[in-house]
Amino acid sequence: MSIKTILKSSYANRGMTLEEDINITNKYYLDNDIAVIYKKPTPIRITKYNYNKSKIVEAFFETQSTLDYNGIYKGKYLEFDAKQTNNKTSLPLANIHKHQLEHIKRVLRHKGIAFLIVRFTILGKDFILMGNDLLDFIENNNRKSIPLAYFLERGLPLTLNYSPRLDYIKAIDKLMEEL
Amino acid sequence: MSIKTILKSSYANRGMTLEEDINITNKYYLDNDIAVIYKKPTPIRITKYNYNKSKIVEAFFETQSTLDYNGIYKGKYLEFDAKQTNNKTSLPLANIHKHQLEHIKRVLRHKGIAFLIVRFTILGKDFILMGNDLLDFIENNNRKSIPLAYFLERGLPLTLNYSPRLDYIKAIDKLMEEL
Repeated sequence: MSIKTILKSSYANRGMTLEEDINITNKYYLDNDIAVIYKKPTPIRITKYNYNKSKIVEAFFETQSTLDYNGIYKGKYLEFDAKQTNNKTSLPLANIHKHQLEHIKRVLRHKGIAFLIVRFTILGKDFILMGNDLLDFIENNNRKSIPLAYFLERGLPLTLNYSPRLDYIKAIDKLMEEL
Repeated sequence: MSIKTILKSSYANRGMTLEEDINITNKYYLDNDIAVIYKKPTPIRITKYNYNKSKIVEAFFETQSTLDYNGIYKGKYLEFDAKQTNNKTSLPLANIHKHQLEHIKRVLRHKGIAFLIVRFTILGKDFILMGNDLLDFIENNNRKSIPLAYFLERGLPLTLNYSPRLDYIKAIDKLMEEL
């Protein structure tokens, strides 16, 4: 997640990013007791704190070494990240960090559910890509981006609705039934 | 968790608090591929950001509305908080927030595992108290603290070891077998 997105969500609601759609969906899941999923706070390193004024006066953003969202659905551990691209033909792998891939492997090893929610902003298309499909691609390709065709073949399409906004749990449900 | 503890862990390792024992234990679990458990970053509200210097110049701590640690063990969702008291006879309930109790109820409803790790610092005793036992006490008592006797009766004692330092997963394992 970019610093701009972090600050945006800190300051005000100035438009509908993928993150905002997910946050609204998570609130819906919480309010309707469907799932308990939260966005993790962005880690910061505090270098100066003013005790008298009870405030942080110098701090820096740190990189999240895990994925941005986690929680519980039907007793299962679930963790995912949101990736948005303006690219029309593929998702650049540059913004998936190596430690995030390690983390996905770990979650899968411990029988959790890990995935990405990917938005092709210009195309107006959203997909779920499961962790094992992501790892499959990376291990078997030298490409620096995942082509749209791979999402069409292996991903699950998501559609925007009024409420819940982006019903990714429905897709996960389908996958859990298949297991 | 107090601001002091947050800053302490930000600055340097100046002694062994319960939080530090848990962090070391979680690292052991991670390194040995036993469980994947992280401390959630403390949420902050950013009010001023310096783009040129890429740093936060004013921010405030916000209250965590969930518990401090969560993760995955054997496919199960697990969440807990660490509470430390200098009191010799009971754990004051004042530092368990109402929204944290609501959150524990929610996690249990969704079949996750929720608990507290409680340290009686002066007595040198650590306990796990499961979420349902905590809720049981609160719903059936008007007391403002949970007496030590309740921990002895309903909690599970934990012992400090060299490595893993505070093997709370062993206790959880025992409980999962009993389910």
